[in-house]
Amino acid sequence: MKLLRYGDQGAEKPGLLDSDGNIRDLSAHVSDLAGAALLPESLSRIAALDPAALPLVSDSPRVGPCVAGTGKFICIGLNYSDHAAETGATVPPEPVIFMKATSAICGPNDDVRIPRGSEKTDWEVELGVVIGRTAKYVSEAEALDHVAGYCLVHDVSERAFQAERAGQWTKGKSCDTFGPIGPWLVTPDEIADPQNLAMWLNVNGEKMQDGSSSTMVYGVAFVISYLSQFMSLQPGDIISTGTPPGVGMGLKPPRYLKDGDVVELGIEGLGTQKQRFVADA
Amino acid sequence: MKLLRYGDQGAEKPGLLDSDGNIRDLSAHVSDLAGAALLPESLSRIAALDPAALPLVSDSPRVGPCVAGTGKFICIGLNYSDHAAETGATVPPEPVIFMKATSAICGPNDDVRIPRGSEKTDWEVELGVVIGRTAKYVSEAEALDHVAGYCLVHDVSERAFQAERAGQWTKGKSCDTFGPIGPWLVTPDEIADPQNLAMWLNVNGEKMQDGSSSTMVYGVAFVISYLSQFMSLQPGDIISTGTPPGVGMGLKPPRYLKDGDVVELGIEGLGTQKQRFVADA
Repeated sequence: MKLLRYGDQGAEKPGLLDSDGNIRDLSAHVSDLAGAALLPESLSRIAALDPAALPLVSDSPRVGPCVAGTGKFICIGLNYSDHAAETGATVPPEPVIFMKATSAICGPNDDVRIPRGSEKTDWEVELGVVIGRTAKYVSEAEALDHVAGYCLVHDVSERAFQAERAGQWTKGKSCDTFGPIGPWLVTPDEIADPQNLAMWLNVNGEKMQDGSSSTMVYGVAFVISYLSQFMSLQPGDIISTGTPPGVGMGLKPPRYLKDGDVVELGIEGLGTQKQRFVADA
Repeated sequence: MKLLRYGDQGAEKPGLLDSDGNIRDLSAHVSDLAGAALLPESLSRIAALDPAALPLVSDSPRVGPCVAGTGKFICIGLNYSDHAAETGATVPPEPVIFMKATSAICGPNDDVRIPRGSEKTDWEVELGVVIGRTAKYVSEAEALDHVAGYCLVHDVSERAFQAERAGQWTKGKSCDTFGPIGPWLVTPDEIADPQNLAMWLNVNGEKMQDGSSSTMVYGVAFVISYLSQFMSLQPGDIISTGTPPGVGMGLKPPRYLKDGDVVELGIEGLGTQKQRFVADA
């Protein structure tokens, strides 16, 4: 099942993608794709609906972030061995975690704003995991029972803000619009193996990242279990699990995004995103 | 004006502390102390009410976190020169920022849970700033116009999780109940100078921190302006501005909190907190 949110920013409605690729309106069944609507019993109720009986959305609305009410946007750093190598880092002995501000979340095809003073805005295609049931002190074996679904995440990053502006990466990860998510929240029944998904990213039509979640160091189940030892994970929380090689800072010479650049990215089964980068005046 | 939220966890109502120290029920006027209720025009409407005409809350309810709907819980690290010295760090050339999970927020007198495996749970009394109006690219001169009020924050910290468990402090700052806030959201008219407030913290009755916000390196107005260059600050966001000296890790030998310890803390004009620390089974 592919769930999405469509409509103007701040006024999105919940929807479902039918087998013909049309959006069906879910708003008579859930008020939004947030909180309790992501619980397993709620997703089962939605899965039992006949898509053909739901109102067809006949225009082509904007697609918004695929979940709302996200309390935590947690990212895993250096979680692909070959990406760690390209940034000059070694794979950490346990997951590196940092937070992205939830105010960075935007729709998958919204413009991304390059903040004032930025000279090192970079790209990162990532596999996102959306929590569907509260997880605290869960084992790796139980972990995937707490997943509502998966989504494509663009972990846009300002490398100077992240690493050259006095400690802690959050500063370079949290700028407004630095977190496009979606287009869809894809339920786990459609993802046979989250550790074997092709993922790619193009800048102005040129392929920059071309990897697979199979080279992830700490897999989805481990990461959920690990995080839950430190804090409760709650419905709507997003975990972005790191990026494969090919980011701009790893190129020789490094390459960063400029006003007018267009980035397209995708993960197998999770759809694609396309953003225009626009410098803040 | 001192605003607060009272009642059982997850079912708090908004209230106002009258001049006799009694709680008055505000729920006929605002649904909660969150989002739009924190805007200047909303706070002005509340300030215009006659407290004596509001329903008196005659029992002694639990006091909850003083704001709800917090999107970001941003902390400033090493922001008191003497605290930086005690931790062996130097004052950074610009503010160090990190995120505390919003799921760590709890009431000012709720039990604080020491997470499994913790051996270095530490205390930090901090001045919290609650945003009342969206701030983006604001100047230092405009910054304080975006403040809804101030509150006491206990930035509970697990030092091993923070610094010995592979990168990024958020891991030791985000455990459930590591963010008691309140008792009150105190509006700026009651705080003549946020940079001149006495602050203290006792462990089992023994004074451990005894400082003043006058020794803060990067003051409230600067920090708001600084953060707003990186990201939008939104109503309900909390900025915790760092701690003065006297934390457990700075003692020789270091001292950390154990099951059964009681911590009391306060800031001039912002009330006090008292927490029992309880080890998670």
